[in-house]
Amino acid sequence: MCLTREVVEGPGVNYLGDAGAGAGALLRLMRDGQPRTRAELAALTGLARSTIAQRIDALLAADFIGPAGEATSTGGRPPAQFAFNPSARVALAADVGATHGRVAVTDLAGHVLAEHRDDLDVGLGPDTVLRWMIERFHELLASVGRGPADLIGIGVGLPGPVEHSSGRPVNPPIMPGWDNFDVQGYLREHLGVVALVDNDVNIMALGEHFTQWPTAEHMMFVKVATGIGSGLMSHGRLHRGAQGAAGDLGHLQLPHGSDIVCRCGNTGCLEAVASGAAIAARLTDQGLPAKSSQDVVALARGGSVEALHAVRQAGRDIGEVLAAAVSLFNPSVIVIGGSLARAGEHLIAGVREVVYRRSLPLATQDLRIVQSRTGDRAGIIGAAVMVIDHALAPAHVDALIS
Amino acid sequence: MCLTREVVEGPGVNYLGDAGAGAGALLRLMRDGQPRTRAELAALTGLARSTIAQRIDALLAADFIGPAGEATSTGGRPPAQFAFNPSARVALAADVGATHGRVAVTDLAGHVLAEHRDDLDVGLGPDTVLRWMIERFHELLASVGRGPADLIGIGVGLPGPVEHSSGRPVNPPIMPGWDNFDVQGYLREHLGVVALVDNDVNIMALGEHFTQWPTAEHMMFVKVATGIGSGLMSHGRLHRGAQGAAGDLGHLQLPHGSDIVCRCGNTGCLEAVASGAAIAARLTDQGLPAKSSQDVVALARGGSVEALHAVRQAGRDIGEVLAAAVSLFNPSVIVIGGSLARAGEHLIAGVREVVYRRSLPLATQDLRIVQSRTGDRAGIIGAAVMVIDHALAPAHVDALIS
Repeated sequence: MCLTREVVEGPGVNYLGDAGAGAGALLRLMRDGQPRTRAELAALTGLARSTIAQRIDALLAADFIGPAGEATSTGGRPPAQFAFNPSARVALAADVGATHGRVAVTDLAGHVLAEHRDDLDVGLGPDTVLRWMIERFHELLASVGRGPADLIGIGVGLPGPVEHSSGRPVNPPIMPGWDNFDVQGYLREHLGVVALVDNDVNIMALGEHFTQWPTAEHMMFVKVATGIGSGLMSHGRLHRGAQGAAGDLGHLQLPHGSDIVCRCGNTGCLEAVASGAAIAARLTDQGLPAKSSQDVVALARGGSVEALHAVRQAGRDIGEVLAAAVSLFNPSVIVIGGSLARAGEHLIAGVREVVYRRSLPLATQDLRIVQSRTGDRAGIIGAAVMVIDHALAPAHVDALIS
Repeated sequence: MCLTREVVEGPGVNYLGDAGAGAGALLRLMRDGQPRTRAELAALTGLARSTIAQRIDALLAADFIGPAGEATSTGGRPPAQFAFNPSARVALAADVGATHGRVAVTDLAGHVLAEHRDDLDVGLGPDTVLRWMIERFHELLASVGRGPADLIGIGVGLPGPVEHSSGRPVNPPIMPGWDNFDVQGYLREHLGVVALVDNDVNIMALGEHFTQWPTAEHMMFVKVATGIGSGLMSHGRLHRGAQGAAGDLGHLQLPHGSDIVCRCGNTGCLEAVASGAAIAARLTDQGLPAKSSQDVVALARGGSVEALHAVRQAGRDIGEVLAAAVSLFNPSVIVIGGSLARAGEHLIAGVREVVYRRSLPLATQDLRIVQSRTGDRAGIIGAAVMVIDHALAPAHVDALIS
């Protein structure tokens, strides 16, 4: 072969200066973890072996891939194999709820290396909460023997609407002091890497999709907790919508109406009737004191007939609204998560009962309605995956390497 | 440069055999129509100039690109420029409605070169309708001086649910004889090229997006005619959903309910209340004979107060359902099309009135609700674009060239 690293530096065009360009696309392909030889990569990409060799060198130098043994040979020296190295960098992830915060450090494959959970009131405001977050991040990094130089980025989920492009909360109802706060900029300034922010339901959708349904093209993740919301995956990609407001199920109107006034000011919103907060209030009225969806779950698990009945009816009400969402979005999987989903099968049974009855047959013929399997961890895994996918996008890898 | 077409054929790897591989990705980039030099393409892609030269040769040989003059030079011989050649092939497109058929031949940029419209009853069944279509296709091709060898593919829209992957209608309510008919296979057999089939609303969404809103990431196209349906674009791509059933607005329940029984068997469906057929029936009851949405439009344009009132109320009813769709999907643009949209501003005024009142502020802050601008042609342009995008996908171009 005449094309080597030495000779490609022809006049006018410095190919070594371009070493990074295109390496990102090769890394994207290799993120499946499969070990491959240079020849296999050339065949897969249609690129010249010389180009592949150059990009492999760049990715090896950046540690994004590593040697992965030798392929079996049909004679002669067996060719070397290379594979994605998920330990090359680490991601930090945070999932902030109304009353708790969870942080984790993951490798580039989204595996949690260490995590931590605290009770934390999001209402303390961004300064307190983000300072808590940064302290925990440093502790976690130290606990796995990594430092800030190993960071690929930070992913954060917050319990309210977030403009994803700017990373700023937008009129978040339960987050006093956070409106329009530059969360992204604050974290980047303190930790020196890219930070992405999204609402908690979107990162749960990402986490559940990544770990449980990676091949499902169109998925809907419904969180039923203090409030009700959903995250939509279209063609395997989060559909955030124009303002990042997509998936807002909580304020859709129940078809059978309701007189209950919602915190948004309208009546008949799903959230005002079927959320954990709404059920807790109703049970309290019935003489069964409950303050939160956790209390509702405890009552239901304790066998309270009233609580079981209320949870099942909430499932039916959610099903009424989901039936419309199914006609509109036609997902192949609906995952029901959030704290109220832990009340057992009653919630999901109510959902299934109504969705399969109300939706058009074509849209439900292969529809699966399942409980979240990732549970508590959906959010942090999703937050990590969000920033890893962003940071390992071909153009970003090219820029990082060159 | 030492890398020429002669020397790259090293032992073991025949690079000329790979000539096609990767050319498709280059063509995708060049489809913007911009003339570029080899050096510019190398800089844009990060590929070696030798690789670019090879792919340019392959695309020139297949006629997909052509010379496009010379760039200005800073000295020496000015470098040649190349640009996408939309005349390389042609696409055939058909938009079949309940009572009409429209066919067109377009270039690879989706420009209509010739078209034809006939009154045609889709209920005559697939044999009659598809024979009509194929005859018209041959006439159109002849009229622009092209033959079957010039075809890149065929795109077809049908007025009912279609399983896009197989190109077969699925229980289409107004298409007797079409259920599960292999439209795709029939056309491929008779014309020898790939055929893609979708429902009429999806191709209208594609056509409107392609011609009017190419940069809108999240768009919703609502067709209001005999029935009511919608097509959703997510990240600039049609969101068909798991069974191709996404966008089914017509059978969502009106929040305020209704006793009118829909053809689907439920009561309170939007389509049973606000479609052209429903309005025509209501006006007839009021002593204003109308058989179709066209009749309703004629009455409204003639100044009938009853018809104007009915159209505006239909807009409000559609708005009630769209408000939920906006919360769920958060589009940046909603386009209202279909025959009833031709009743003027009354329909869209009703839609706007309710959507801006009922939807959450965040989701409507930049939302535009506009009339279709492509009108009658949205469908055939969308059908053409659907098959052109498919046939010019990098992998297909690579296969075609190699």
